[in-house]
Amino acid sequence: MGELSEGDILRRILSRTGRAAAAILGPGDDAAVVAAPSGAVVATTDTLVHGPDFRLAWTSGHDLGWKAAAVNLADVAAMGARPTALLVALAMPEGTRISFVEALADGLREACDALAPGCAVVGGDLTVSDVLTVAVTALGDLEGRAPVTRSGARPGDVVAVAGELGHADAGLAVLFGRFRDADGTPLPVDDAVLRPGDLAALAAQLRPAPPVGLGPFAALAGATAMMDVSDGLALDAGRMADASRASIDFASAALGEDPARALAGGEDHALLATFPDAELPTGFRAVGRVIERGPAAVLVDGAPYEGRAGWDPYRDWDAAAG
Amino acid sequence: MGELSEGDILRRILSRTGRAAAAILGPGDDAAVVAAPSGAVVATTDTLVHGPDFRLAWTSGHDLGWKAAAVNLADVAAMGARPTALLVALAMPEGTRISFVEALADGLREACDALAPGCAVVGGDLTVSDVLTVAVTALGDLEGRAPVTRSGARPGDVVAVAGELGHADAGLAVLFGRFRDADGTPLPVDDAVLRPGDLAALAAQLRPAPPVGLGPFAALAGATAMMDVSDGLALDAGRMADASRASIDFASAALGEDPARALAGGEDHALLATFPDAELPTGFRAVGRVIERGPAAVLVDGAPYEGRAGWDPYRDWDAAAG
Repeated sequence: MGELSEGDILRRILSRTGRAAAAILGPGDDAAVVAAPSGAVVATTDTLVHGPDFRLAWTSGHDLGWKAAAVNLADVAAMGARPTALLVALAMPEGTRISFVEALADGLREACDALAPGCAVVGGDLTVSDVLTVAVTALGDLEGRAPVTRSGARPGDVVAVAGELGHADAGLAVLFGRFRDADGTPLPVDDAVLRPGDLAALAAQLRPAPPVGLGPFAALAGATAMMDVSDGLALDAGRMADASRASIDFASAALGEDPARALAGGEDHALLATFPDAELPTGFRAVGRVIERGPAAVLVDGAPYEGRAGWDPYRDWDAAAG
Repeated sequence: MGELSEGDILRRILSRTGRAAAAILGPGDDAAVVAAPSGAVVATTDTLVHGPDFRLAWTSGHDLGWKAAAVNLADVAAMGARPTALLVALAMPEGTRISFVEALADGLREACDALAPGCAVVGGDLTVSDVLTVAVTALGDLEGRAPVTRSGARPGDVVAVAGELGHADAGLAVLFGRFRDADGTPLPVDDAVLRPGDLAALAAQLRPAPPVGLGPFAALAGATAMMDVSDGLALDAGRMADASRASIDFASAALGEDPARALAGGEDHALLATFPDAELPTGFRAVGRVIERGPAAVLVDGAPYEGRAGWDPYRDWDAAAG
């Protein structure tokens, strides 16, 4: 990448990331201009840092671009909004190959096309850093609706989820458990030793596909509260319960084959929402009830949740182990 | 910082960054909601990375926050827009002191209060990284005006500048020339050895004060093109000239005491604008003319500019030298 200028690299990226339908003025000036027809814009930012958030032994450029887009699109969807545009700040080591950067751009575009059609990169920034870092900001439009916050859950509401629970955590366990050497250094994934179900779990971890399009549907269906499940269902439900001054009681029978992992595993990027009616919008399934606030914010089958609050081995990352 | 959770640190930051006048929903949910009364939002992102963009020996937490805000506010202003909100993605080494983070938050707020009253941080993200990195996204409102791009300069227009030229470069020269040891490692600035003018130059480099409020004024006054001067006046004027299919001829007599430094020095964050009339809005001074496109994009006193295109010693940064 050494012989290419910042402008050259940016042009290569932007030639691959498509054009946002809402872009009034796209990349290439001091700033982009994005339509916000409802007179308000939803905005969120989330960063992936090499080490704590991903490892290059496991994550390709394509998957990194995809995930950086997906986790931000999920946050926009969780407000009940439709994503319109991404801004991407990329800090890369000098020796990064242009083919890696192009794959990252392709991943950004494909995640937008698959999860939030019409949304695309409208601006970016490129800097040199010893640590590969992708900071994405996502913008969205509420289409005239009020934002769905995490504080509106009311006792009696049905608690519902759209998207997968626990799969991303299972994928992380596959990577940490089976694709590291004795020192803990990540090793490339060897497809030959994968077991049934591993591929789906790895995909959930490396290329999450949150139900972005269901965010606006949930808002239209009258969701009283909604949030992106990124740190584990129990932990995030506790935040929703605290913000709403209520408690949330999960039915373990509704949490799939491994309720413990569904409750504790991080990085699902499912949508957690509450609805006043038992009739849920397409894509959502009931997993519990909002109840009057009690001593415990989160319960399972009527008893206070006492499982792990979230498992995040990346936090224990040792820089020396690559 | 080790014993504080991500949520604790975010709360500490957000308790200091104030509230944006345009915030419909502020920090604390999956995303913020910001008013965009004109039905469009201006959006830009710019990142400061330890090493290439700043050194902790020279830059305090406060100055880092200030500069991270200022460089983004300048990009919004350069579109003729008023900044409304910032999102801040902060990646920090584990050992970063909470007092440093609080100073950074204070710097973000003070830059907004001084340069773009009403604008404030509405959202953020916190991650761990071995390299201190501040990625800011700024949003702005056009208040019903069309954006002022870099492509509208027309032959006959007056070329004008608001803000300082060359001071940030002079400040960088002071730091690199006088506050490094024999190995090139940055040393703290010793006020006792500063010469007249050094303080202003250091302030321009470490705490730039771009004329953010003049961006909308220039738009109202009919600016045909405008941009933030971040990579050196000559280099940025060349970009404006290329985008406008015209050439720009500077009058060296209008470029201050050191025209060479005014033309080549980076990080000024002045506003470069072109106007059809000789009567310029307050704060702008004439520095040249737009002329028909010729072989050279940029001229000085009628002759093709052949000085250095921009001086950026940070690009030559050696990680080992801290």
